Amino acid sequence: MTDKAVILLSGGLDSATTLAIAKSAGYQCFALSFDYGQRHRAELDAVKRILAEYPDVPHKTIHIDMNQFGGSALTDTEIAIPETPSDGIPVTYVPARNTIFLSLALGWAEVLDAAAIFIGVNAVDYSGYPDCRPEYIEAFQSLANLATKRGVEGQVIKLETPLIHLTKADIIKTGNELGVDYSLTVSCYAADVDGKACGHCDSCRLRAAGFAAAGLDDPTIYK
Amino acid sequence: MTDKAVILLSGGLDSATTLAIAKSAGYQCFALSFDYGQRHRAELDAVKRILAEYPDVPHKTIHIDMNQFGGSALTDTEIAIPETPSDGIPVTYVPARNTIFLSLALGWAEVLDAAAIFIGVNAVDYSGYPDCRPEYIEAFQSLANLATKRGVEGQVIKLETPLIHLTKADIIKTGNELGVDYSLTVSCYAADVDGKACGHCDSCRLRAAGFAAAGLDDPTIYK
Repeated sequence: MTDKAVILLSGGLDSATTLAIAKSAGYQCFALSFDYGQRHRAELDAVKRILAEYPDVPHKTIHIDMNQFGGSALTDTEIAIPETPSDGIPVTYVPARNTIFLSLALGWAEVLDAAAIFIGVNAVDYSGYPDCRPEYIEAFQSLANLATKRGVEGQVIKLETPLIHLTKADIIKTGNELGVDYSLTVSCYAADVDGKACGHCDSCRLRAAGFAAAGLDDPTIYK
Repeated sequence: MTDKAVILLSGGLDSATTLAIAKSAGYQCFALSFDYGQRHRAELDAVKRILAEYPDVPHKTIHIDMNQFGGSALTDTEIAIPETPSDGIPVTYVPARNTIFLSLALGWAEVLDAAAIFIGVNAVDYSGYPDCRPEYIEAFQSLANLATKRGVEGQVIKLETPLIHLTKADIIKTGNELGVDYSLTVSCYAADVDGKACGHCDSCRLRAAGFAAAGLDDPTIYK
């Protein structure tokens, strides 16, 4: 029987690549997205465009009103998106975001009896968020083994992070070989409603540098 | 400065006691509840009644449509609430529920710069859920230390579980001494819209036995 996997799909470059990797590894994939009050809602349209390429992948979008908490430039319109890199953890960090997303993925994975959860975190060309680091992922794996019925019964739900040690250029090269159409994806923190990118935010800069280093044309549509 | 704490408040006996303990320990408390498609929605009314006794405690209710996943008698109306104890993990187990709730509490705790999260899990008189065990709580603490900005900066958000090793009778005695009015709380998995309890489900049985063992009158309103 084909193993099932839940794939966290944000609509960005990394998660689109992660989905392509999980598919190519032979998993039966289930895509999970979040409507969490993010400013960059063009992401959710990007998710739909990406999934149109994978008609056999079921998809759920979970609504969570995380903007009730505030505290991040990505969910609080009163905090400006920075255009220059910061020292330490930037204001675009959303408190506990990956923990919340992985927890919900864990819930769906349990119900599906899935063998894996794929998340496109990256600890090389990234924004310095604490919940993208390998030691964080290991801690979540330990938690998942104890938290679930499947874990108690001796079968783990494996947290797969195929991008974690790749540069942005290597991520793009990998996705390119797997046929990912990056023009469908949106990475910008301040994308407009049509998904056009600002070209200035941290996420835009990392993405543009990745295409340059990969020696590939950047298909991103800028404002 | 008074330390802040986020208190998970479900409207049941355990979480009402936990709030009273956190208040008596001197924390500035912030109550967090979830509307997750639970069948026993009388819980959310109980939360409001309990908090009417604590007018200085801010409160948020986060909506999460976990019933999109199904897989539990508490969120899926097609699965019956059992009236006899089961071997192993019962069908009332909601996949990854405490992980999801604690993750969201962690997000709010980060924004508040809170020192603690209180959760009323219990590993003595409980339903056998994997995410109520001490080793699960320890794993979440390790995760929280790595997941958060506060953790990276060397200050933990402490997960406090004051009930974890208490019997239901001891929980009730503790709450009684702290002035908790248990007639305001709802524990029943199948409570009616007015919060009246069925008296038959696992949760009702544990609660009734607790009052009996504590030698206190049971103020629960049964159907």
